[in-house]
Amino acid sequence: MKKAVFGVDVGGTSVKLGYFTIEGVLLDKWEIPTRTENGGVNVLPDIAASVKAKMEEKGLSADDVEGVGLGVPGPVKDDGTVIKCVNLGWGVFNAADELSSLLGVKVKVGNDANIAALGEMWMGGGKGHSSIVTITLGTGVGGGIILNGKMLSGVNGAGGEIGHMTLDTEETAVCNCGKCGCLEQYASATGIVRLAKKALDGSDQASSLRNVENLTAKDVFDAAKQGDELAGEQVEELGKKLGLACANIACVVDPELFVIGGGVSRAGQIILDVTEKYFRKYAFHACRETGFALAVLGNDAGIYGGARSVLG
Amino acid sequence: MKKAVFGVDVGGTSVKLGYFTIEGVLLDKWEIPTRTENGGVNVLPDIAASVKAKMEEKGLSADDVEGVGLGVPGPVKDDGTVIKCVNLGWGVFNAADELSSLLGVKVKVGNDANIAALGEMWMGGGKGHSSIVTITLGTGVGGGIILNGKMLSGVNGAGGEIGHMTLDTEETAVCNCGKCGCLEQYASATGIVRLAKKALDGSDQASSLRNVENLTAKDVFDAAKQGDELAGEQVEELGKKLGLACANIACVVDPELFVIGGGVSRAGQIILDVTEKYFRKYAFHACRETGFALAVLGNDAGIYGGARSVLG
Repeated sequence: MKKAVFGVDVGGTSVKLGYFTIEGVLLDKWEIPTRTENGGVNVLPDIAASVKAKMEEKGLSADDVEGVGLGVPGPVKDDGTVIKCVNLGWGVFNAADELSSLLGVKVKVGNDANIAALGEMWMGGGKGHSSIVTITLGTGVGGGIILNGKMLSGVNGAGGEIGHMTLDTEETAVCNCGKCGCLEQYASATGIVRLAKKALDGSDQASSLRNVENLTAKDVFDAAKQGDELAGEQVEELGKKLGLACANIACVVDPELFVIGGGVSRAGQIILDVTEKYFRKYAFHACRETGFALAVLGNDAGIYGGARSVLG
Repeated sequence: MKKAVFGVDVGGTSVKLGYFTIEGVLLDKWEIPTRTENGGVNVLPDIAASVKAKMEEKGLSADDVEGVGLGVPGPVKDDGTVIKCVNLGWGVFNAADELSSLLGVKVKVGNDANIAALGEMWMGGGKGHSSIVTITLGTGVGGGIILNGKMLSGVNGAGGEIGHMTLDTEETAVCNCGKCGCLEQYASATGIVRLAKKALDGSDQASSLRNVENLTAKDVFDAAKQGDELAGEQVEELGKKLGLACANIACVVDPELFVIGGGVSRAGQIILDVTEKYFRKYAFHACRETGFALAVLGNDAGIYGGARSVLG
């Protein structure tokens, strides 16, 4: 009788691990450093050793463990083949097979954004749904798509790479990806600050943001909530771009729910309100009532999703 | 031993039917009228009678038949429940169950655009692939998405409704759907003519199109192929919008191949060339090499896809 499942979120600096019941209760979580030297050869053995130590600590045999699910920062094929994880030093190999042979239990591997989306579906903002799109607004903009409970990886591992949807073909500023006009340029924390500075520099309009040193996205939202007009315009612009992107996603995959997460989403309801407002304007009528929710698992989404991915 | 499968494409005027081997060889095809009166109560019984007559003609028993697959003009849930087919007079009911009980064989039902996409994947422009997006450029613009061999229907049946992706938030002309700036307004036959007329009316630029009565999309492509500058600009504009839409689809579902069909696609290679040109510009680098092909099954895509849908 299987009773435990492990979820692992592999980052470039540290690996987060979680020990769950198969019903999704997080019983323990911990971190280990990511040793990326030598092409990252130690990453999977370190994870195996850490999981084995935890199994021993908890008195679990391999028979008690349903498996281990891993999210990694790069494209992954459905069979667990990692295409390339620059941040880990990894090339192309089957990470699921390798970790499985080290541990003697079933292993699933997926892209970290898709795995996090699965976590939010299971026990987070998307709980109770089976087809959701998550949008993570952080330093960049990431996305994950779950349809009927399955991750949409895409042929090149680019499924859900919605941060690089082109929204403005007239844009001249260049995105980190090399293109111009990507969602990430407007809806990431970096993008929000960039646009606010541009607005401040481009006019004499009074704004409390003029007194802020080291302007952050949080400052923009805080000022908007307090009625600052220039900051409010920036929030509208964010909503316009994010609502447009969601409308365009909806006419492709038509999910039940959008789940907005990442550091920027800590601004709360104001993000949902302004995004929904423009989504309703730009969305095809059949999917105009699609729901919006905030992500709730934060940095734990990856370990939840890893665990969920093993449960099939 | 199953040896036959039927594919059925239900239109508002006529129903197309095809009798196939399970390997996908079309052995016979025919049409019957669609009787839409009385809420379309006769449509399924007429199809059942026609399939039964063909089975008798060919000496097939129910044991010889793998099943019947149906494409209908409206949203359909995965279990065969039709949400509404205005053109057939249908409300909400399970069309798969009803036709199955009339025929005594397995029945699958899907949206006609998605079913046609499945046909193109099986024996058409997408043969040999399992994840494709079809875009049908006709009076309107339709789409169908197949991922790992399965149709993407969407929660509201709006999966692949890419004709209503918003590409220009500044557009003031209104789409049939009530929004402004939809792909359909630029890439449908109607849209191409609308934009060409606008360009002709808006300038004194010399163009062979000025001598054409009842301008069609074909006239625009023919003139562009013969070097007409204004017509060439219209084709570029089409490529820009279609390439942008494909790039935005690619960062959501990341398919292997785009298959372009519908009446407008009869212009041939020029459509692929101009669409790919802008796709490569707007697409995220990981999916920039996604392929493009022309649809090849024409009006038979629906019966091929219907047959394929039964084969699972």
